Amino acid sequence: MRDVWVDAEALRAYAAVLLQAAGATEEDARITAEVLVASDLRGHESHGVARLEPYYVRPLLQGTINACPQATVRHETAATIVIDADNGLGQPAAKRAMDQCIAKAREAGLCMATVRHSNHFGIAGYYAMQALRHEMIGIACTDAGPLAVPTGGRTAMLGSNPIAFAAPAGRNRPFVLDMATSAVPVGKIEVKARRGVPLPTGWAVDADGQPASDAAAVLDWLRRDLPGGLMPLGGVEAGHKGYGLSMMVDILCGVLSGARVHLGDPHAFTAGEPADVNHVVAALSIAAFGSAEEFTRDMDAYIDGMHRVPPAPGVDRVRVPGEPEFKAEEERRRHGVPLHDSVATSLRALGAELGIGLRL
Amino acid sequence: MRDVWVDAEALRAYAAVLLQAAGATEEDARITAEVLVASDLRGHESHGVARLEPYYVRPLLQGTINACPQATVRHETAATIVIDADNGLGQPAAKRAMDQCIAKAREAGLCMATVRHSNHFGIAGYYAMQALRHEMIGIACTDAGPLAVPTGGRTAMLGSNPIAFAAPAGRNRPFVLDMATSAVPVGKIEVKARRGVPLPTGWAVDADGQPASDAAAVLDWLRRDLPGGLMPLGGVEAGHKGYGLSMMVDILCGVLSGARVHLGDPHAFTAGEPADVNHVVAALSIAAFGSAEEFTRDMDAYIDGMHRVPPAPGVDRVRVPGEPEFKAEEERRRHGVPLHDSVATSLRALGAELGIGLRL
Repeated sequence: MRDVWVDAEALRAYAAVLLQAAGATEEDARITAEVLVASDLRGHESHGVARLEPYYVRPLLQGTINACPQATVRHETAATIVIDADNGLGQPAAKRAMDQCIAKAREAGLCMATVRHSNHFGIAGYYAMQALRHEMIGIACTDAGPLAVPTGGRTAMLGSNPIAFAAPAGRNRPFVLDMATSAVPVGKIEVKARRGVPLPTGWAVDADGQPASDAAAVLDWLRRDLPGGLMPLGGVEAGHKGYGLSMMVDILCGVLSGARVHLGDPHAFTAGEPADVNHVVAALSIAAFGSAEEFTRDMDAYIDGMHRVPPAPGVDRVRVPGEPEFKAEEERRRHGVPLHDSVATSLRALGAELGIGLRL
Repeated sequence: MRDVWVDAEALRAYAAVLLQAAGATEEDARITAEVLVASDLRGHESHGVARLEPYYVRPLLQGTINACPQATVRHETAATIVIDADNGLGQPAAKRAMDQCIAKAREAGLCMATVRHSNHFGIAGYYAMQALRHEMIGIACTDAGPLAVPTGGRTAMLGSNPIAFAAPAGRNRPFVLDMATSAVPVGKIEVKARRGVPLPTGWAVDADGQPASDAAAVLDWLRRDLPGGLMPLGGVEAGHKGYGLSMMVDILCGVLSGARVHLGDPHAFTAGEPADVNHVVAALSIAAFGSAEEFTRDMDAYIDGMHRVPPAPGVDRVRVPGEPEFKAEEERRRHGVPLHDSVATSLRALGAELGIGLRL
């Protein structure tokens, strides 16, 4: 199997048409395709169009995701918005929530929105980065299905629960952190399973809550909802910190939003029911805290300082979060996005099934 | 050497009198003593009165910390406050900033304050917890002197840069996360050094940026500002996440606040100069997002779910962040706070030197 290289614009158009064929509105389809391809461009194929069919198109066709949601603002203050996404696609819900936060942060200095009753929204970093072109700092996080095991426990309760934070710089690339609060993403376990090599200590635990080394077994437990799962960020020595960060994300996204999640029993979700994923996004106006020019100047000085750190042998330069993704995006805008052969094949089959006019 | 058990109230009074004798105002001394003893009560002696002399009393006597600061609000919007602490004690600066955030969050829904030109403020959790009795969520973080080495580098650039997050519950204890973004605190390295046992991989790096095992050597490098230092949270496999979280704290506390830190060169601080530590605190009104009653009910369901997770062998129950500290506090309120003999001796000597009337 080899990769197929596809132009990002063509991929975006194809994904949007597929989503519309599955019932999404033109605008929702466009935004969702945009966020998915942004992930492929940034080098995170795990969250890109590879998920188009299972996470978005099939649920739209089956009605598990509401194709024509009536998202509503349930409450707002000067600096807060409470949104119910009406079980629509997560990407347009989160993008619009962030747009609203940015508008309100211009007045209030900052604004935070909770978005409940939504769906998987792809990469959290996309929404945090919306703030960058408005001289603002952006924050985004989301809850997700259970994957990681609380410190001292034996069964998964915590989602990947990512935290994204983006801040503009001047000469340098913006700072963009976008990280799961689990020790590693499931994708890294899959790589080890494919290679048949043992897991490093600190990635996952077995049914007894002890470090697990069998990658294939861990994937099997997660698939079958059995005890065992990923460790939170920090692993054996400091997993209680990742556990705490992950709970923080759950509290903001799931509890504060007034979500209808099955609190305390993440396994109570039923297949074919709405996923009830919940997000939080926030925008901080730099002008509310000082001068945007001084901020970007100081960001450059700070990032330059990281670049000047003497690198370890084999490292060309100390990188700042976000730099690898900007580099990937530059290259992929020029040379196209790599799609695994199986992904391209299934996207083409889906297009044929839905009778769309475009070809990939 | 054994511990001396001291009544928390007596210790607080003694610490306050010492701080006043060193020049602090009555109120600043009271707040600082309160935060330090809160740390001892919560089981974190590392951030308690053991630091009273080196971190607070001596700098006050030497004028490195301003004993009579004129803290000023430099700018504010509906949901933001920019404070210059005028090089005063960090504890009163952060506590008052959080009080102001709580007051403003009642109207705006949430409020965040940057506090620049301050000093070490003790445990971040104290300020996050101020929000709890107002049906609010509290957040606090601070920058700090260089200890941790960026991923791929060889020299320390990042402080312990803690993040604290507190949210109220109902029947259960509040959720209180208070964590350094380094893999471990320096205190844990000191314990290994005292025992003469090697460091686990993932705690620290040597001058080549490779995992370090010699605890005493790591402490020596940090003391002498030589290459090597702590790893960020996540260690070998996922240290880039802790590195990113630590930069996030620096960006909020150091860059956004308009601080006069030596951005990009944390080693440019000079002994005898102000420490120029900077904080961020924030309060989120739960009522702005929904009902406080529903929130605490849902927090209980969520925490109960964690408690129901089957524990690993040797673990009595899965704990939620903050629970060990609340338990320690209950016991220590009853039985007193343990002071290491050497700490008690030096506090008594300091009292004699400053000629205070109280005895410890």
